Amino acid sequence: MIVLGIDPGTAVTGYGVVKGDRVGPPHLIECGIIRTRPRDPLASRLQEIHAGVTELIQRHRPDALSIEDVFYARNVRTTIVLGHARGVILLAAANARIEIAEYPPAEIKKAVVGAGGATKEQVQFMVMRLLRLKTPPQPSDASDGVAAALAHLMSPRFVSSQQSVLSE
Amino acid sequence: MIVLGIDPGTAVTGYGVVKGDRVGPPHLIECGIIRTRPRDPLASRLQEIHAGVTELIQRHRPDALSIEDVFYARNVRTTIVLGHARGVILLAAANARIEIAEYPPAEIKKAVVGAGGATKEQVQFMVMRLLRLKTPPQPSDASDGVAAALAHLMSPRFVSSQQSVLSE
Repeated sequence: MIVLGIDPGTAVTGYGVVKGDRVGPPHLIECGIIRTRPRDPLASRLQEIHAGVTELIQRHRPDALSIEDVFYARNVRTTIVLGHARGVILLAAANARIEIAEYPPAEIKKAVVGAGGATKEQVQFMVMRLLRLKTPPQPSDASDGVAAALAHLMSPRFVSSQQSVLSE
Repeated sequence: MIVLGIDPGTAVTGYGVVKGDRVGPPHLIECGIIRTRPRDPLASRLQEIHAGVTELIQRHRPDALSIEDVFYARNVRTTIVLGHARGVILLAAANARIEIAEYPPAEIKKAVVGAGGATKEQVQFMVMRLLRLKTPPQPSDASDGVAAALAHLMSPRFVSSQQSVLSE
């Protein structure tokens, strides 16, 4: 099973492509970031994010896309803009007809580290350990994308978007 | 000049296609709604909204897409989900390379009614008057889509997405 994990963002969207069979250890195929320019119009940046995720899906043919839920609103405007990015990412997955799994940030941390309140460093460390890497994926957004993929591979709960709490 | 006005929503997205030359009175070409089923996964609903707006753009070849800004958060979750819908709508416009104009709700009301705090009924009444219709467009979401198109045709301020405050 191949999972494309996504840490959505307007400026930087992190991703990780992880292969796992739930028996042997998971294997990192690729990770990285899709970076957009802050001075570009939002619509162009959404276009780049959508094209980037679509390209990853076409190249790796993942069985599922695993993505962070967003429900917090430390900054309402930032969160709304993040919703735009998530929208075009979910669209890319729906167009490719792949399963969509959504996990709250705490659940991703819990699956990877064992504690919902884990720090960014703890997540990076466990991502490195679980995938037997010499260094944690950089930047941290890429690591967060990998963590989202691992969470789906390791979680007993497979939340398809059909049960998503995001649906109104 | 043809403007496609959009009142975005996950359940109901209202739209109005209005032709105007800023000299003669504006003319309503078409209005309506894109309705999605609440029980469908969010990703499928986003797919329907994106396909619906893309189809409208292909059929009417508008010069611009005019859409309501979202920055209020009466209900954070609803607003975030609305951000998803806006994301796939902006993507449709960007893919078609048409101008994007974003207006806060109060500015749309001010352009159409003359007062930023106008009621839904006042907006519907003025939409009917301005377009010389016998009845206001129904449902009100369609009327709000038409109002967004009118606001762009009537506003001295042509905010392209390049100056959008939504861009981070």
